[in-house]
Amino acid sequence: MNVTVRGRTRHFRTVSFDARHNAVLLIEQRLLPHEFRIVSARDFRQTARAIQDMIVRGAGAIGATAAYGLAQGARAFRGSDQKQFQRHLKTVCATLQAARPTAVDPVNAINQVCATMRAGQTVAEQQALALAAAEEFANGDVRHCEEIGRHGARLIRNGANVLTHCNAGWLAFVDVGSATAPIYAAQAKGRTFHVYCDETRPRCQGATLTAWELAQQKIPHHIIADSAAGHLMQRGRIDLVIVGSDRTLGRTGEVTNKIGTYTKAVLAKRHGIPFYVAIPFSTIDWTLKSGLDIPIEERHESEVLGAWGTSSQTRSASRTYVRIANPASGAINPGFDVTPPELITGIITPLGILKPRELWPMRRRLGWQRPE
Amino acid sequence: MNVTVRGRTRHFRTVSFDARHNAVLLIEQRLLPHEFRIVSARDFRQTARAIQDMIVRGAGAIGATAAYGLAQGARAFRGSDQKQFQRHLKTVCATLQAARPTAVDPVNAINQVCATMRAGQTVAEQQALALAAAEEFANGDVRHCEEIGRHGARLIRNGANVLTHCNAGWLAFVDVGSATAPIYAAQAKGRTFHVYCDETRPRCQGATLTAWELAQQKIPHHIIADSAAGHLMQRGRIDLVIVGSDRTLGRTGEVTNKIGTYTKAVLAKRHGIPFYVAIPFSTIDWTLKSGLDIPIEERHESEVLGAWGTSSQTRSASRTYVRIANPASGAINPGFDVTPPELITGIITPLGILKPRELWPMRRRLGWQRPE
Repeated sequence: MNVTVRGRTRHFRTVSFDARHNAVLLIEQRLLPHEFRIVSARDFRQTARAIQDMIVRGAGAIGATAAYGLAQGARAFRGSDQKQFQRHLKTVCATLQAARPTAVDPVNAINQVCATMRAGQTVAEQQALALAAAEEFANGDVRHCEEIGRHGARLIRNGANVLTHCNAGWLAFVDVGSATAPIYAAQAKGRTFHVYCDETRPRCQGATLTAWELAQQKIPHHIIADSAAGHLMQRGRIDLVIVGSDRTLGRTGEVTNKIGTYTKAVLAKRHGIPFYVAIPFSTIDWTLKSGLDIPIEERHESEVLGAWGTSSQTRSASRTYVRIANPASGAINPGFDVTPPELITGIITPLGILKPRELWPMRRRLGWQRPE
Repeated sequence: MNVTVRGRTRHFRTVSFDARHNAVLLIEQRLLPHEFRIVSARDFRQTARAIQDMIVRGAGAIGATAAYGLAQGARAFRGSDQKQFQRHLKTVCATLQAARPTAVDPVNAINQVCATMRAGQTVAEQQALALAAAEEFANGDVRHCEEIGRHGARLIRNGANVLTHCNAGWLAFVDVGSATAPIYAAQAKGRTFHVYCDETRPRCQGATLTAWELAQQKIPHHIIADSAAGHLMQRGRIDLVIVGSDRTLGRTGEVTNKIGTYTKAVLAKRHGIPFYVAIPFSTIDWTLKSGLDIPIEERHESEVLGAWGTSSQTRSASRTYVRIANPASGAINPGFDVTPPELITGIITPLGILKPRELWPMRRRLGWQRPE
C-alpha cells in the first residue's frame, strides 16, 4: 500500500525481494507506528532471524518472507554440484522453519517453492525457479487479499461505522491485508465511512499497526479501548465488524483469532450487527475436528502487566516499557480465542462470502488436499 | 483494611480524621500501587483540592472526605458569631462541592452533616456536631460495605473463580469496598478461592488498585486483559462476576459502571455465569427513568492513546506516561456504560441480595425519599 515518508508517497509491499543484491526487504514492524524503515536481510540466516525477532509478523507476510528466504539461500549457492546444493537447501529450509515453529504459512511457502524447483535440471535452473516460485507465492498472497477486498467491499456502505480488532492489515500480509481488504476496496470505490480500531491489549496491534495503516490511507478512524465496543453497539454506533483469523477450522467453521475476537462476536450477535471474518486460503486448517483441540498459546505475563510506548521523558525515539500493574501481582495472558460458527455472519474468502459451515462442502475449491 | 508497609501490618481507612491537628488523612491513591503514603490535608481548601486532584477517588471515599472537610472547615472557625460562622460554612460547602461537580456522594455527605449541625445552639456545639456527623457518615459507609459483604459472602464457594472489573474496593470507599466486600468476607470465613482482575483499560484501575488491594489481603489473584474474560468463560474458568456501580437507577434496575462492565454482563449471560452488582444505598439514583438519560462522560483521548506506569529507564519511582498508539490517530473514550437489568443476576445491597426490579418496590427501605 502507499506510505508517505517525509512528504513523499510511495507504494510498498511488506516483503519484497532485491534480486541484484540477493536481499529480502522488510518493513521493520517493531518500529511502527513511530518510525517507518525498510531493512534488508542479506542472507537466509538474517531472513530467518527477521522472522524470529518479529521484524516481520502476520501469517501471509512470514510465509512470503520464508519463500524469499529460501530463494535467497538457493541463489547464494556457488557451484553446480547437485548433492552439495541439496544439502545446502536442507539447511536453508530447516533454518527458516525453525524461526517460528508453530506457524503454518512458512511451511506451506517452503513446500511450494521446493515443489517448483524440482522442475529444474541444473543448479542454475533451480535457482531461477526458486525465485520465480517465491515471487509467485507473494503475488498469490496479494491476489487472494485483493479478491477478499472485491467480495467484501459491498458490505461497507456509505456512512458505515466498521469495527476491527487487532491487525489483519497489509502489514500482516504482502499487501492489502485480509480484514482491511474490504476497507481499502470500499475506499477505492469512493465510499466514505469510519473505522473503530480496537486497541487490542495486551500488544496493542490495533492502536499501533492498524491505526497507522488507516492513517496512511487517510481513512477516518478512531482507536477505542477493547471494553468500549459494547457501549458503542448499544448506542447504534457500529454497523459492521470485520476481523481476520490466525486459523479457521475448515471442518467446523470455528475461527481462532487474537484474544477478544470472541467477545466482539458475542456482542455483535446480541445487537444484530453483522460479524465477518476475512481469510485467504492459507488460514484454513483442514485437519482439526474441534475448536477445543486448538492449542491456545499462553504468552508471557509481562505483556499484560505493562505496555510499550514512546516517552518524552526518555528523550529517545525508541520504545520504553512501563510497568502498569501492581508489582506484587501476576497475570494470565491467553493470546487467542475461538469464535463458534453460529456467531459468524460470513467468512470473506477469495472465492466469495461463505457461511462458516460452507467451508467443508467447498473444500476442493478452497485449497483442501486429500491427505496422502 | 490491613496494609503491610516495610514488614509491618496495620489497619488503615482510605479516609480518616486527625482531630488533634484538625486534618483529613488520605491514602495518596495516585501513587498506588507503586508507593503507599498517607497525606494530611490541613485545611478545607487542601481537602477540596485532594478530591479535585484525585488523591482520593471513589464514591464513598469522596463522600466521607467531603464530610470530614466540612467538619474541618467548621472547626477552624474562631469566634462565636453565628452570622459569621454561617457565612464561613457556606464558603466551605461551596468549595468542597465544586471539587467534583458531577459526583453525588459529596452533596449527600454535606447535606447530612449540615442537617446534624442544626441541632446545635452555639458555634462550639455545632462544631462538635459537625465532626460527630462526619464520623457517622464515614462509619455508615463502612457498615453498609460490611453488610454487603455479609450478604454476598455466600456467593463465593470454596474453589471459586471470581471475576471483577475496575476498582470497587476499599480504596473507593472508607473501608471494605462494595464489589470486594463479599470477597473479603468470604476470606474471613476461611474460604479459598481465586480472583481475576480485569485490567480495566484505559485507566487500569483493576491492574493497579484492585490487584494491589488483593495482594495486600493475600487473596490469590491474576490480572487479565479486558479481552480475555470471554475466553476464560468459554473454558469454564470463571464461576461468578461481581462488580460495583457508579449509579444504579432505582426505577429500572439499570447499572452504570466503568466502561466494559456491560460486555462482561453480556458474556456472563451467554455462559450462564451469575453476574452480581454490589452497591451501598448512596449509589442509587431514584430520579432518572431510563438508562438512556444517563450522561456518559467522554474522557480525554490521551487515556486510550497511552498508559501510565513505572519505567526502569527513567530511574525514578514516579510514573511515566508512554504514548502507545499511532501518533497521527485519535481515540474515543467513553468512561462508563449501562447494563440492563435482564443481564443482572442480583444486586447485593446492605439489605440483602435483590433482583434489579426489586429496588423500586423496596425503595422506602433503600433510602429513597419522597421528593419535596
